[in-house]
Amino acid sequence: MNGQPLVYLDNAATSQKPQVVIDAIAAFYQKDNANIYRGTYELSQRTTDLYEGAREQVAKFIGADRSEIVLTAGATASLNLAAFGYGLPVLRPGDEIAVTAADHHSNLVSWQEAAKMTGAKLVYLPLDLGGKVDVERVKKEQIIGKKTKILAIAQVTNVLGTNQPIAELINLVHQAGGVAVIDGAQAAGHLPVDVKKLDADFYAFSGHKMLSQTGIGVLYGKKKLLEATRPLFFGGEMIEEVGLTSATYKKAPYKFEAGSQNVSGAISLGSAIDYLTEIGLDKIAAREAELGKAAAAGLRAIPGVRVYGQGGGIVSFNLAGIHPHDLATALDTQGIAVRAGQHCAQPMMNFLQVPGTVRASFAFYNNEEDVSALITGVKEAKEFFHGLR
Amino acid sequence: MNGQPLVYLDNAATSQKPQVVIDAIAAFYQKDNANIYRGTYELSQRTTDLYEGAREQVAKFIGADRSEIVLTAGATASLNLAAFGYGLPVLRPGDEIAVTAADHHSNLVSWQEAAKMTGAKLVYLPLDLGGKVDVERVKKEQIIGKKTKILAIAQVTNVLGTNQPIAELINLVHQAGGVAVIDGAQAAGHLPVDVKKLDADFYAFSGHKMLSQTGIGVLYGKKKLLEATRPLFFGGEMIEEVGLTSATYKKAPYKFEAGSQNVSGAISLGSAIDYLTEIGLDKIAAREAELGKAAAAGLRAIPGVRVYGQGGGIVSFNLAGIHPHDLATALDTQGIAVRAGQHCAQPMMNFLQVPGTVRASFAFYNNEEDVSALITGVKEAKEFFHGLR
Repeated sequence: MNGQPLVYLDNAATSQKPQVVIDAIAAFYQKDNANIYRGTYELSQRTTDLYEGAREQVAKFIGADRSEIVLTAGATASLNLAAFGYGLPVLRPGDEIAVTAADHHSNLVSWQEAAKMTGAKLVYLPLDLGGKVDVERVKKEQIIGKKTKILAIAQVTNVLGTNQPIAELINLVHQAGGVAVIDGAQAAGHLPVDVKKLDADFYAFSGHKMLSQTGIGVLYGKKKLLEATRPLFFGGEMIEEVGLTSATYKKAPYKFEAGSQNVSGAISLGSAIDYLTEIGLDKIAAREAELGKAAAAGLRAIPGVRVYGQGGGIVSFNLAGIHPHDLATALDTQGIAVRAGQHCAQPMMNFLQVPGTVRASFAFYNNEEDVSALITGVKEAKEFFHGLR
Repeated sequence: MNGQPLVYLDNAATSQKPQVVIDAIAAFYQKDNANIYRGTYELSQRTTDLYEGAREQVAKFIGADRSEIVLTAGATASLNLAAFGYGLPVLRPGDEIAVTAADHHSNLVSWQEAAKMTGAKLVYLPLDLGGKVDVERVKKEQIIGKKTKILAIAQVTNVLGTNQPIAELINLVHQAGGVAVIDGAQAAGHLPVDVKKLDADFYAFSGHKMLSQTGIGVLYGKKKLLEATRPLFFGGEMIEEVGLTSATYKKAPYKFEAGSQNVSGAISLGSAIDYLTEIGLDKIAAREAELGKAAAAGLRAIPGVRVYGQGGGIVSFNLAGIHPHDLATALDTQGIAVRAGQHCAQPMMNFLQVPGTVRASFAFYNNEEDVSALITGVKEAKEFFHGLR
């Protein structure tokens, strides 16, 4: 990039893909491509087996049953399905939805809209200075209580990489009789996830952030809750019987999969899961945290740099007096790809009292040289901006 | 397949992909993969240019402006966006939605649901024996009239391949003050489409049925109508400003593209459009019709075969006394892939008074040998079933 070798540090936006995943996509289109469910021929049956096999892999990956796995277009589609398919029918005026300012817009604005439509109310959980939910205060002030119908929160936040205390929060919302919708977009593929151990009610993530292709995602939902969830889209194989004025629908998860599905997306997700599992999620988590910590330490040592937080491979920071976009552009001239701005988390920017941050996000395939490149890059950028004054 | 060379005649379900499209997907992931809009670095800008370039190609492909092109997960998602994003806000009790029994569930059941939610009413347009809308009767009986807010109809139907008289119907609904939502899933990529010449208000189609990958589709909408259409999903780059309790959204088409988009899907669609355009849509239409006609003629010549209709490359038929699934299975043993059943069009099956049909659907890359294989296959299957009696 810009005459330099690429140092890709925007993995929280989207990951790069191993060759084996790219090959799986190509092989599917070359050898196995047909539409699923519908064909009464061997090729279509083979495609259906591949697609349903991917669902099975996803289920195993997060400790669920295959009937609890809805394949969607991505984490945002998954979270919106939870908000409008599950949320709208159950929310009543005065009900509360517990959210946090540290969350991604996809798990916040969808609930804002669901609240507006139903008369429910958003309640923001208190955060400590590091952006982590203050569970003690939540308990003491009974912020999650009888009125709480839904808790919507990320397991790992996308700005600071904060590992939220979701096990405790899920427990609290269950005591209150509500359900927990967990945004796993920054967690799945980065640490071991077991939805049963977490006792999550809904759990959403994207394929493209964990080595798979774009346009595929997952909504896990407990069986009973998926049954109570309304489909949002209609048509294709989700339908059972159609009369002239009404229709009946299949059971979950099929009732949520209207129209031809992203079959190669599912297959690539299965392939990515194989790849990640073979390396080991524990190892991946440890490696990403190692790189993230090294980067945060190196950045903190640069006078004028403020690190807002680091969790796993994610580090958010700013250089005093320099707009985050300008710093990112300066890094870009050195071939270093980082994201700058609000990271689809404007309330979090208000919480941090900044217009934006620079975010470097490491994947397990990054290395110490990438950490050094970032630190050297920020130093050089600092000198460059200093020279302009 | 089953020890025979594959004769793929299920192109109306999904097309096969040229190597150049498969290569475009692989090349994207190997060389250009980043997330779009968000990055302040060259690679992300390049990805954004590729994605927006694909939107531009789609626009040119159907004679639209790029601001009128929403990229979706597929035709079903597009039609549901029209039904719930546009339909719900404008429909009032007593309003009428004109549909046909010849339509795919995706453009029928979505309107059933929108009708139920709003108190509007579905009105079925009369069909002639070939499944074509009887425009003269529609005019004479003023079936499309002042109460008609929406006409929802396929340009080419998926069971019989009927080319509906949509130009005339669009004209009628416009005279009545309503809008036309055209399902182009079986038309786009099969014949030249110009949404401006048609004066369609919304036009939906899928990538995977026209040489592209799965999980990508298009909703064209006239600028003013897209502005009046509500987004259904929230999150990511569709958002402008987010406060604690409400948010504002970008303009169309961006407001409809919540979350990370199917970037490789868009790129593969652009590549497919290049491929189709280089061959020429007129040529493709002529070739598919030629193959379809030859197949229909050959099938009609077999005693006991009834052909319900043929349009373009699509032929629907049955063999007397044999369930369509059984015939399809018998063809499968000869390596011939056809679809059997209700084709996501149960009202059309009732109209034809059959439990299902066998549908062979030819693409331009099929040939006369495939036609012969089908005809020979049906003859052999007939003898086989005869021998069982």
